[in-house]
Amino acid sequence: MFEDPIQAVQWDDGLVLLDQRKLPGEETFLSIPNLDAAVDAIRDMVVRGAPAIGIAAAYGVVLAARGRRGADGRVARDELSADLDRLILARPTAVNLAWAVERMRRLIDATPDEDLDAALLAEARAIHEADVRANRRIGELGAGLIDRPCSVLTHCNAGALATGGYGTALGVVRSAFGAGRIERVYAGETRPWLQGARLTAWEMVKAGIPVSLIPDGAAASLMRQGLIRWVIVGADRITANGDVVNKIGTYSLAVNARYHGVKFMVAAPNSTIDPDLERGGDVPIEFRDAREVLDFSGRAVAAAGAEAWNPVFDMTPAELVDAIVTESGVVTEPAGKGVLGLLDDRG
Amino acid sequence: MFEDPIQAVQWDDGLVLLDQRKLPGEETFLSIPNLDAAVDAIRDMVVRGAPAIGIAAAYGVVLAARGRRGADGRVARDELSADLDRLILARPTAVNLAWAVERMRRLIDATPDEDLDAALLAEARAIHEADVRANRRIGELGAGLIDRPCSVLTHCNAGALATGGYGTALGVVRSAFGAGRIERVYAGETRPWLQGARLTAWEMVKAGIPVSLIPDGAAASLMRQGLIRWVIVGADRITANGDVVNKIGTYSLAVNARYHGVKFMVAAPNSTIDPDLERGGDVPIEFRDAREVLDFSGRAVAAAGAEAWNPVFDMTPAELVDAIVTESGVVTEPAGKGVLGLLDDRG
Repeated sequence: MFEDPIQAVQWDDGLVLLDQRKLPGEETFLSIPNLDAAVDAIRDMVVRGAPAIGIAAAYGVVLAARGRRGADGRVARDELSADLDRLILARPTAVNLAWAVERMRRLIDATPDEDLDAALLAEARAIHEADVRANRRIGELGAGLIDRPCSVLTHCNAGALATGGYGTALGVVRSAFGAGRIERVYAGETRPWLQGARLTAWEMVKAGIPVSLIPDGAAASLMRQGLIRWVIVGADRITANGDVVNKIGTYSLAVNARYHGVKFMVAAPNSTIDPDLERGGDVPIEFRDAREVLDFSGRAVAAAGAEAWNPVFDMTPAELVDAIVTESGVVTEPAGKGVLGLLDDRG
Repeated sequence: MFEDPIQAVQWDDGLVLLDQRKLPGEETFLSIPNLDAAVDAIRDMVVRGAPAIGIAAAYGVVLAARGRRGADGRVARDELSADLDRLILARPTAVNLAWAVERMRRLIDATPDEDLDAALLAEARAIHEADVRANRRIGELGAGLIDRPCSVLTHCNAGALATGGYGTALGVVRSAFGAGRIERVYAGETRPWLQGARLTAWEMVKAGIPVSLIPDGAAASLMRQGLIRWVIVGADRITANGDVVNKIGTYSLAVNARYHGVKFMVAAPNSTIDPDLERGGDVPIEFRDAREVLDFSGRAVAAAGAEAWNPVFDMTPAELVDAIVTESGVVTEPAGKGVLGLLDDRG
């Protein structure tokens, strides 16, 4: 079994994050000493990817609790609760963030001050380890859907970097490659942040899996020429009906996949499912600064006076999805059935 | 009437080209003194856009004929013919290049040495002026298809920069904006060369037309949200059956437009129609260097070891096209009828 060396989120008596903004040129780790730094790191995309954000936030709660312990040893619980609210607001779209923080909040409510630090750290580690286990199970289940050797297309980075390790969409790719059922991964470069170019290509090269980048607009041609059989992506939020919110560009791939008879798989942990939202149209979509599109590496590429429309995510309706894979199982053709059945055996 | 100030291809006792690789940061004009420099400028994309390439090539033939005139005043016609072949090979996909060069070749064959320079220059100027007239007519005809105020999406740059002036797709936008029927242009940034960001945004800002850049992958969301009613693009080659070869990413827009009930218009001069090719699948598609995707501004953005799949063009089948507009008229729903009827009254 391939052992993945990439640990983008680590705990070493404090939170340590691989600065993903600097990949692939530099592999720099940042020490995150307190809650404020954790909020900044999530908002500024030092760490990105819905599951990885959730794990980082869980460790961030450990830091927050330490920061709210007074000289008398007592924890200022109202202030700590406000810290957790601030963490949740750092990125509005990924549900794993709120999911992890609320799980930590429940533990805080149930734990006396003297036991809090150890209990919170154990819980954050449990969230982290469960994510890696979930990824490996997702990888096996997703690979099982690929019935013969083929090439696939992925988008953005739903890999080890986006999770506790191994990856969701790229977990499926790793498992299927190991089983001889993937020949090549095409990676959409994923403008404007180029996560495909900077992160997915880097992960695949490290894993020894052949990878070809494509401009996002080239995916339709790739499909028309019969070069891929599956699109495999992660998710930032899956609503009860099976709609999938993921990186901008995902929806275009889903429309094109359906048109060309290419299969569309979404791989994500159960924590990505938001049982409280019925449909994707209810998910708040984050818009980021126009300069992300107008500039490249801090240099203007567009004329002064041009504007930009820069949503970070889009919504793929359940009817365009062929399979949703979580650690609990596979829902094929989720339209009409939704995904809540996957949560029945959630621990 | 809006007078367009952009003349990317000029003649001033020699060919002068706006170096489009440096826009929007620098407006630099290059003097092209001879055939070799013209071939280089076309291949290296100093000048780009199918009609502009054709016009530049026509002037390139003038330079070639000058270069092949010996001290005795006689023109070395075999060598000149080989020069024309080299010009045609500088870019393989745009048919306007071959169309313009072959038109110049016919004139060479019919003209004695003593009259050749003047005759060729007059012919190149005629090709240039006819293109501008064609653009303005295309603009009027295309604008006539837009029946009420709306926003539109374009891709790459089919503007003044890509033509003799005014533009094809952006000619339609200019005319429709002047008539109060366009509120905003969304421009796909058009990776990997970013012609949308660098060129279309610059042209639209200069023309005072509101423009918003989008990452290419965001077009489907724009359509789903009902923000545009038309996609308007140019073409590098249109085959007899109405298939359209244009910048990579166009085909994805066409698939998405059909899915979302958005109309899809192709605006191009008659010289873009290749009556000798039956269908788009017969058009040679140019692939360019993987480094265009792996690098940005000479800096690697992808990990060493990653490959790239970098076709410059894609093919949109006629059945996804709602209207093809040339200076001769409009073909709606070209599938089944093709476009050769437009050439019946070609001068």
